[in-house]
Amino acid sequence: MSMKYFLVTAVMISCSIGCSSDTENKTVTEKEDDKKISSHSDPLPSWNDGELKRSIINYVATITKEGGPDFIPVADRIATFDNDGTLWSEQPLYFQLFYSFDQVKAMAPKHPDWKDKQPYKSVLDNNIGDLMKQGEKGLLQVVAASHAGMTTDLFESTISQWIDTAKNPAKQKLYKELVFQPMLELVKYLQANNFKVFIVSGGGIEFIRAWAESVYGIPKDQIIGSSIKAKYDYNNGDPRIIKLPELDFIDDKEGKPVAIQKYIGRKPVFAAGNSDGDLQMLQWAASNKYKNFELYVHHTDSTREWAYDRKSHIGTFDKGWDEAIAKKWAIADIKNDWKVIYPFEKK
Amino acid sequence: MSMKYFLVTAVMISCSIGCSSDTENKTVTEKEDDKKISSHSDPLPSWNDGELKRSIINYVATITKEGGPDFIPVADRIATFDNDGTLWSEQPLYFQLFYSFDQVKAMAPKHPDWKDKQPYKSVLDNNIGDLMKQGEKGLLQVVAASHAGMTTDLFESTISQWIDTAKNPAKQKLYKELVFQPMLELVKYLQANNFKVFIVSGGGIEFIRAWAESVYGIPKDQIIGSSIKAKYDYNNGDPRIIKLPELDFIDDKEGKPVAIQKYIGRKPVFAAGNSDGDLQMLQWAASNKYKNFELYVHHTDSTREWAYDRKSHIGTFDKGWDEAIAKKWAIADIKNDWKVIYPFEKK
Repeated sequence: MSMKYFLVTAVMISCSIGCSSDTENKTVTEKEDDKKISSHSDPLPSWNDGELKRSIINYVATITKEGGPDFIPVADRIATFDNDGTLWSEQPLYFQLFYSFDQVKAMAPKHPDWKDKQPYKSVLDNNIGDLMKQGEKGLLQVVAASHAGMTTDLFESTISQWIDTAKNPAKQKLYKELVFQPMLELVKYLQANNFKVFIVSGGGIEFIRAWAESVYGIPKDQIIGSSIKAKYDYNNGDPRIIKLPELDFIDDKEGKPVAIQKYIGRKPVFAAGNSDGDLQMLQWAASNKYKNFELYVHHTDSTREWAYDRKSHIGTFDKGWDEAIAKKWAIADIKNDWKVIYPFEKK
Repeated sequence: MSMKYFLVTAVMISCSIGCSSDTENKTVTEKEDDKKISSHSDPLPSWNDGELKRSIINYVATITKEGGPDFIPVADRIATFDNDGTLWSEQPLYFQLFYSFDQVKAMAPKHPDWKDKQPYKSVLDNNIGDLMKQGEKGLLQVVAASHAGMTTDLFESTISQWIDTAKNPAKQKLYKELVFQPMLELVKYLQANNFKVFIVSGGGIEFIRAWAESVYGIPKDQIIGSSIKAKYDYNNGDPRIIKLPELDFIDDKEGKPVAIQKYIGRKPVFAAGNSDGDLQMLQWAASNKYKNFELYVHHTDSTREWAYDRKSHIGTFDKGWDEAIAKKWAIADIKNDWKVIYPFEKK
């Protein structure tokens, strides 16, 4: 949460207790901005009105104003979004893990050594606690194993089938229903303003591409993630690409700016994440010569979604939170900033 | 050269000697197609009229015809172009090598071991023959060394400066002037028909991105190439990405379909190359479920450009040529198919 935003929120909270109107403490400019938001069709209807929503809209207005001092040419309007915890939920575990567990269990008969070998043992024992202790690398090994040896075509069809049917055990909703309506609106709003929007996720690149294009409206080639190695097989004239059981690249932390450079070749001007794994991506955007916007999503709603931050194994938000405060980056407090969380909540 | 195209060309060549009109041997459909080309503004003015030009235009018309049996949805209109020898010349050596030689020579004082160590020794001795004997891997090592330890920003500005001033020793033209006008028209024509056009090159990804966006009209994030590893450096809040002297990925031969899957996530429907290094990319496109188009550029003009194929070290066109003939892929014979080769030849 940026200091400015913190102060304004504090004002708004005290107002909701003791003020007759929540606009009384606003400056003239802020009131005019509110008028602009309400007089046009609202591009972010699922965001509560307030400083954060206003700052996003002001940013977009400023950098798209031709001839203005902060104008950004269209080619440089690159926006990068984390996926897990930023565009959809990530509890009780990253959703891709549930997919991978199902796959590892199905593959286990062909890998008898897995029952005594970590991290597979934990999966087969349904011992999530033990699995989590093995850290991100252990989790990614499970993910890699669940892809290995498959052709890309088979993998895509398998995941498509899963995403259309599998439900989150805590919410009893399809995983693909647990995307964040306010973030869908934000992606669409940026695209409408000629931003090229990318996903830059620690999750598996092929996993996300298999379903996210239609769900988020982001083309496959604008989806970047962690990857395993693959090889081309001519296969007597019916060529295929086979995934190998070897990590290629972990698109997390320092890996995110590296992946952005590799896949996009441009520094983003807008970056959004929710965890320490996104910190370097936000730093990278913050170093852009153009006016830039850094957004952290803070999971604060234990009723409608989940509440977690510094001490969570999934989506740890600790160093990133400190740096966001120090650097006055925007922080979306889900409980207070989001009118609606999931699309199915809309009337 | 496809057999069909070969036969039509043979007819046209005999006609240019003995026939009163080069349209006499054409079918009614072909005559109608010619009329279509001439009655609309010609999208490929630097291509000579003939079977190849007609087949490109017919292909685009067919797959963009909504409701037609071969219609391709916009999201699947992926076109991939090789760069060296396909979009610009590549003789007497890949242009990036000339850049790398200049860099290696400039860096040599800091690397005294290079004067006895291949492949650097050959560069410092100006012994191109010896360098070529070390194959593509040796060349890529030189390229990697010329990038290593630089920040991406510095690399980009260095190459931008070079591309604006350095001249090809054989043609005495700026390298960036030696792009193929007919291919620029083809890229633009496909883009106008909602193809997403990518470069998939064996050359260095950062090298091409530094100049190709403005020259070809292809965005940086749609340029794929060979890469070296890189790391993120926080640098006390002024973050940068530093290139490392270690190969990451060679985007050639089997690497091209792998890179296409990794960066794009979709099989192309249109692929163009000029050498055996592009064969797997063309095979990959040819296996698309949608109607697809494979194009090889054959360097046959020793006067206006260069003539080379099976026995050339640069841009070897041997296995690819055989497979193109066997599979009836299109082959652009530069001497006969291209009215103009370079943009500066246009009146």
